[in-house]
Amino acid sequence: MTDARNDEAADWIEEREGDSLRLGYRVTGRVFSGTSSYQRIEVVDTGAFGRMLFNDGVVMVSERDEFVYHEMIAHVPLFVHPRPRRVLVIGGGDGGSVREVLRHPEVEHCRLVEIDGMVLDACREHLPSMAGSLADPRVEVTVGDGVAFVERTGERYDLVLVDSTDPVGPAEPLFGPGFYSAVHRVLREDGVVVSQAESPFLHPDRQRALLRILGDRFERVGIYNYANITYPGGFWSFTFAARGDLCPLGDLDDARVERSGLAFRYYSPEVHRAAFVLPPFQAQALRGLRTPFK
Amino acid sequence: MTDARNDEAADWIEEREGDSLRLGYRVTGRVFSGTSSYQRIEVVDTGAFGRMLFNDGVVMVSERDEFVYHEMIAHVPLFVHPRPRRVLVIGGGDGGSVREVLRHPEVEHCRLVEIDGMVLDACREHLPSMAGSLADPRVEVTVGDGVAFVERTGERYDLVLVDSTDPVGPAEPLFGPGFYSAVHRVLREDGVVVSQAESPFLHPDRQRALLRILGDRFERVGIYNYANITYPGGFWSFTFAARGDLCPLGDLDDARVERSGLAFRYYSPEVHRAAFVLPPFQAQALRGLRTPFK
Repeated sequence: MTDARNDEAADWIEEREGDSLRLGYRVTGRVFSGTSSYQRIEVVDTGAFGRMLFNDGVVMVSERDEFVYHEMIAHVPLFVHPRPRRVLVIGGGDGGSVREVLRHPEVEHCRLVEIDGMVLDACREHLPSMAGSLADPRVEVTVGDGVAFVERTGERYDLVLVDSTDPVGPAEPLFGPGFYSAVHRVLREDGVVVSQAESPFLHPDRQRALLRILGDRFERVGIYNYANITYPGGFWSFTFAARGDLCPLGDLDDARVERSGLAFRYYSPEVHRAAFVLPPFQAQALRGLRTPFK
Repeated sequence: MTDARNDEAADWIEEREGDSLRLGYRVTGRVFSGTSSYQRIEVVDTGAFGRMLFNDGVVMVSERDEFVYHEMIAHVPLFVHPRPRRVLVIGGGDGGSVREVLRHPEVEHCRLVEIDGMVLDACREHLPSMAGSLADPRVEVTVGDGVAFVERTGERYDLVLVDSTDPVGPAEPLFGPGFYSAVHRVLREDGVVVSQAESPFLHPDRQRALLRILGDRFERVGIYNYANITYPGGFWSFTFAARGDLCPLGDLDDARVERSGLAFRYYSPEVHRAAFVLPPFQAQALRGLRTPFK
């Protein structure tokens, strides 16, 4: 099937998952490459997945499947919270999560706190389908450490979206207890935090640790799954944690989604509910760490 | 993160998806390698995924995640059909699907038709956790062409499971109209056929073609999804087609699953239902090709 001569000449970019799995993408153009104080940043064009962003060799987004991740991090809490006016996004410098948040007209203010200015610059220039959202007048962008921001700010939010990479390198503190104590403090009474929560197949330990931290601080804690092409293993999760009694299933109103008039490619009320159905191997690994849903 | 010296010495095996994506697994031992009249067969040990079988460089199974595929191909139709006594598996020479079928005591006879005797021999010797099932007295193994078998046999079945690889090479006829006309003929009145149906992200054209063929021949046609680590993109599908009026949702009885006393790692009645919820991008791609469910 593979033409060895073509192959020798081809340019590939590879992500490593631990030391035993690697995913390679054929590169048709190298668009940007830079090293910030935090990480190596690469933007490449690929034949099959469109333009892709890699931080330290880990896939952040591909144009082809970013809709899955961004719809699922944003619309699940936005359709559960009764009045999502103020949204804080930690990480997510590509702007994809902010783009989805802004589709809800009741959102008045969205702040993005991204630690790495070079990610923001690279995405604004090279990934405008996502980072174009950052120019919206409802958006304020802060270049800075997300942990320090939530520890010091006097602002309060209805939703916090933790749109982070893996818990190695600059994103590591975003998986720690101190950060979530501070997130709890910046959330309004009905507030919800949704966080990128790794893979049930590959990182059950990380999922357990995150749910334990959330369970010590929040009233209602759950986890939901989605399917991405370009994350290792393809099956990944977000955690959902509410300060108050909001329930990601019981407080979802299909008619409200319908009335919004929004069209989605991955999200729907049915997908929302199905995402909270965990296969037994995952439920077993997370036993005792989730709150029952209404 | 990667030690370049270790890396040079390491042995990797790689699957290519088209010419633009590759997935590599670090090999800790080469267990079997052979070339049959149909394909190149390799069994390797990997650090992260246990023992794996590759046909022509395409992952067939890994010990680590095979439970997902085999539970979902088998238990979805087995818990929908009211009296699954006779089951025919086409392909599936690793024996994993047969193993799951045999967990249902009402199954009296299960025939496996695998085209490649070398796959059977390699799996019997090197993947006993799956192929051990083939020694069960309820099982009859036929080495031969699945298409020819269903065209010529006088036997009738309650369920047919098409446990095939991708529609290139020896499995190509298993995606064709002639095969499904013959499958329809060997099914009893209430019969159901479930087929490996590729990826909604990577092969929407293959999913459309298969549903069109099924829709021309069967009363009720649907598709359901599951999450595998070791298939490219991680999000794959099975089609469900019934000769009669059996409905994969309406005819699922949670109490029957409970009474079976069977423990699963991926399957549950809730996972069964959630699997039939398609994200809008997939529903759109398959518009008009599915039957409504009760």
